[in-house]
Amino acid sequence: MQQTIRVTVWNEYLHEIRHESIRAIYPEGIHGCIAGFLNKAGMKAGTATLREEEHGLRQEVLDNTDVLIWWGHMAHQEVQDEIVERVYRRVMQGMGLIALHSAHASKIFRKLCGTDSDQLRWREANEKEILWVMDPAHPIAQGLPDHFILPHEEMYGETFVIPRPDDLVFVSWFEGGEVFRSGVTYTRGLGKVFYFRPGHETFPTFYNPHVQQVIINAVRWAAPYAAMPKVSLGHNPEPIMPLSDRRPNTLGQLMEDYGK
Amino acid sequence: MQQTIRVTVWNEYLHEIRHESIRAIYPEGIHGCIAGFLNKAGMKAGTATLREEEHGLRQEVLDNTDVLIWWGHMAHQEVQDEIVERVYRRVMQGMGLIALHSAHASKIFRKLCGTDSDQLRWREANEKEILWVMDPAHPIAQGLPDHFILPHEEMYGETFVIPRPDDLVFVSWFEGGEVFRSGVTYTRGLGKVFYFRPGHETFPTFYNPHVQQVIINAVRWAAPYAAMPKVSLGHNPEPIMPLSDRRPNTLGQLMEDYGK
Amino acid sequence: MQQTIRVTVWNEYLHEIRHESIRAIYPEGIHGCIAGFLNKAGMKAGTATLREEEHGLRQEVLDNTDVLIWWGHMAHQEVQDEIVERVYRRVMQGMGLIALHSAHASKIFRKLCGTDSDQLRWREANEKEILWVMDPAHPIAQGLPDHFILPHEEMYGETFVIPRPDDLVFVSWFEGGEVFRSGVTYTRGLGKVFYFRPGHETFPTFYNPHVQQVIINAVRWAAPYAAMPKVSLGHNPEPIMPLSDRRPNTLGQLMEDYGK
Amino acid sequence: MQQTIRVTVWNEYLHEIRHESIRAIYPEGIHGCIAGFLNKAGMKAGTATLREEEHGLRQEVLDNTDVLIWWGHMAHQEVQDEIVERVYRRVMQGMGLIALHSAHASKIFRKLCGTDSDQLRWREANEKEILWVMDPAHPIAQGLPDHFILPHEEMYGETFVIPRPDDLVFVSWFEGGEVFRSGVTYTRGLGKVFYFRPGHETFPTFYNPHVQQVIINAVRWAAPYAAMPKVSLGHNPEPIMPLSDRRPNTLGQLMEDYGK
Repeated sequence: MQQTIRVTVWNEYLHEIRHESIRAIYPEGIHGCIAGFLNKAGMKAGTATLREEEHGLRQEVLDNTDVLIWWGHMAHQEVQDEIVERVYRRVMQGMGLIALHSAHASKIFRKLCGTDSDQLRWREANEKEILWVMDPAHPIAQGLPDHFILPHEEMYGETFVIPRPDDLVFVSWFEGGEVFRSGVTYTRGLGKVFYFRPGHETFPTFYNPHVQQVIINAVRWAAPYAAMPKVSLGHNPEPIMPLSDRRPNTLGQLMEDYGK
Repeated sequence: MQQTIRVTVWNEYLHEIRHESIRAIYPEGIHGCIAGFLNKAGMKAGTATLREEEHGLRQEVLDNTDVLIWWGHMAHQEVQDEIVERVYRRVMQGMGLIALHSAHASKIFRKLCGTDSDQLRWREANEKEILWVMDPAHPIAQGLPDHFILPHEEMYGETFVIPRPDDLVFVSWFEGGEVFRSGVTYTRGLGKVFYFRPGHETFPTFYNPHVQQVIINAVRWAAPYAAMPKVSLGHNPEPIMPLSDRRPNTLGQLMEDYGK
Repeated sequence: MQQTIRVTVWNEYLHEIRHESIRAIYPEGIHGCIAGFLNKAGMKAGTATLREEEHGLRQEVLDNTDVLIWWGHMAHQEVQDEIVERVYRRVMQGMGLIALHSAHASKIFRKLCGTDSDQLRWREANEKEILWVMDPAHPIAQGLPDHFILPHEEMYGETFVIPRPDDLVFVSWFEGGEVFRSGVTYTRGLGKVFYFRPGHETFPTFYNPHVQQVIINAVRWAAPYAAMPKVSLGHNPEPIMPLSDRRPNTLGQLMEDYGK
Repeated sequence: MQQTIRVTVWNEYLHEIRHESIRAIYPEGIHGCIAGFLNKAGMKAGTATLREEEHGLRQEVLDNTDVLIWWGHMAHQEVQDEIVERVYRRVMQGMGLIALHSAHASKIFRKLCGTDSDQLRWREANEKEILWVMDPAHPIAQGLPDHFILPHEEMYGETFVIPRPDDLVFVSWFEGGEVFRSGVTYTRGLGKVFYFRPGHETFPTFYNPHVQQVIINAVRWAAPYAAMPKVSLGHNPEPIMPLSDRRPNTLGQLMEDYGK
């Protein structure tokens, strides 16, 4: 019944170009890897990158995107404010947004959070991460075991300065002693937002079948419905029910109505 | 035990100057009225207004403010971005913020929300509003009856485009058929935020004893603690627990660790 | 991809038998009406009623039910505790539960709430109810306008003594001045629970197309996934990571470890 | 301004009697230890235990208790249902409840949860636990560092089958690879509920200054206000606003009103 979901996978695409060791892991870029497994899962996934014109995110592209995936790290500041605003407007209208790993510090995620979501603990020590499912009835946890292990990852630790999540789907355990809210959801306007922690560029995290399952689940969860409620905003002079406008003409009467 | 709470009541202070009918209700401005009842309640409340230098919100003023109350309506755009950023930084550090009535569309509240919180239904028809307590165990509902009536108010109606509230304290009923989430809380960084709907400038709403009780309760709720947890952010190279760094030297071994 | 959802519509089925005026509205019972429109929507909906053996809810019936709908009013106390426990166990395992109208006071909903959810204001005055969508991005709000009107209904008013909802989907406005959280969700174990307020037996509420849409949406939302995460509970002597068991042999050493 | 908070610390008090090694740690029982540091903090804390008549929880005791602390482990089934019901009723009326450690499986906490909150992973291996603050602006986190370490504790691991918490204050890290939501809050009726994980009887956990701070903070947070909103429940035949009772006399007209 649901139409094919149209996904745009956005990637900074700088690490893969500059570092051979990273390119060796993701020869087609992180975006290529993610779009690949989404297409295999029956979605229609395209890509866009920072160095393309308008970062590959022309209005027409966004208008034809149900869910936008965002991976960025070293060049958050290069993303133009105008494009951020364009993405924001589409989220308000119902486009889903999935922010991966260091996208917690991207302009768009920070704008949607309204907090210092770029603030957290971190350490690059190739340590083990165990992701635990907090909410096994959540659509994003479908088909997963109750925990899964990433053998090497960058550490992100609390306190993560985010708003209270709508849903807390995953919490990560790190070998060095930290924990992290690794899968959190928000609703912003008509759009659904999911932040997922793993995905450091120096590890083949996006080949992990559980990570792929999470992203596939999240795309399905974040895709807008065919028929979103039509919200009526702005000036509504016509009441639904009849009014008895008894506003007094005098200040004295007004104050008296307020018991003063 | 708790120190005297230091409040700054910020008001646009344009309506009261321009319209004699409004000045008649609030001869010392809405800010003067609010600061007045807060001082009577044992707080130390000062005021600040738009036309003052730096809108009356020099860094030193904010550094000595535990809770900032914000009333604005016609001149949101005149508030300088630099001052908005300054207020935002103080909220992140723990200053409470109470946004009243049309402050839903203020720059600072919109920035903290991360949604189109300026979007809602509205109508000026002097109709009746009944505020219902949703969460009678909430600190902001202390001492209130389970509902109270404002004889005349501006209508605000759903859908109100806000993030899911942390706590939903009040829902309003309007004579014309609408409802509205009239008291909602958020945490942003170390700061607590409360939005309270009533308070149109043409009505003596801020003289209502229940409205005053809500604002007094909210100030107490939003005031930062003497000892907030010290959050450690940024690069943490030293793990709490010993690491077994077994990152492989070869790509082949890395991929193997990932089961690929 | 999703299998046909199997629904069991449970109804007390006493009002319709005793009162001709109610039977005139629901000649096949409220359960018959609801099962009817669910079957038309492509689900496989059966029915069960209080006076049947084991209330029509033998273990086998529940084992083959994805979502159970519950309507009860005058005979909550007649429902056997053993059957309530049986339903509860299935919810824990993932069966969805939709409680309609006066089912707020049913044994099963009260057990799942953990509060006095039978407590609220009420009035039978055939007054108008307007349901407002609070969360237009919610799956249960799909295809709805931002509000819809029921011309005559029983009034339920706050304070409704329920736990904080996971999601607040609808708030009702009543002609007599009250509001009510009319659509709320909970997760309990692996099961999803939705409470929906309308549906008094003396009104043809379940013929309203918006009410039908809500219930259809809710069934889809509450149906368990094909692959729920397998939760591992109980004694787990084997750690995932190696332990350094350094528990001291002496009390003195133990207290010293605790810094005492 | 706030009155002295009256606390009753309830303890099973069986482990301490049966096992000399445990008695050596808590010579006056766990309840004696907890009541001791609460009294030092300026509260009025008494105790009650399982083997006392009515488990030490006569109605009069509860009526004079603002916050009840509950520690139980091996004898949950011995607590009489009538006393559980009595405690439940007082929580509904506003008494705070703090459930410690294995009290997750107590009758009262399970009744308040409405889920299988007795279900979780566990292991007794004396391993290290690190508690992380998730919500540094929460009253229960006042005065704490952003994490603290318990050198030896029993492990509790997710999935913990609880309802979605109102507030998530702490998450624990365990040496063996698990995580756990260690500090969660709920509101039930007018009463506030806090579950706190640590406190296995074989460790001197309740001497840890951070653990004591958490419990002191939680008591202050859970204590009812002097003036709780008076909730009006039950039949309310008198509307606040005038009704236009236009219920039709005929079925035909009724159905027509519903557009059928």
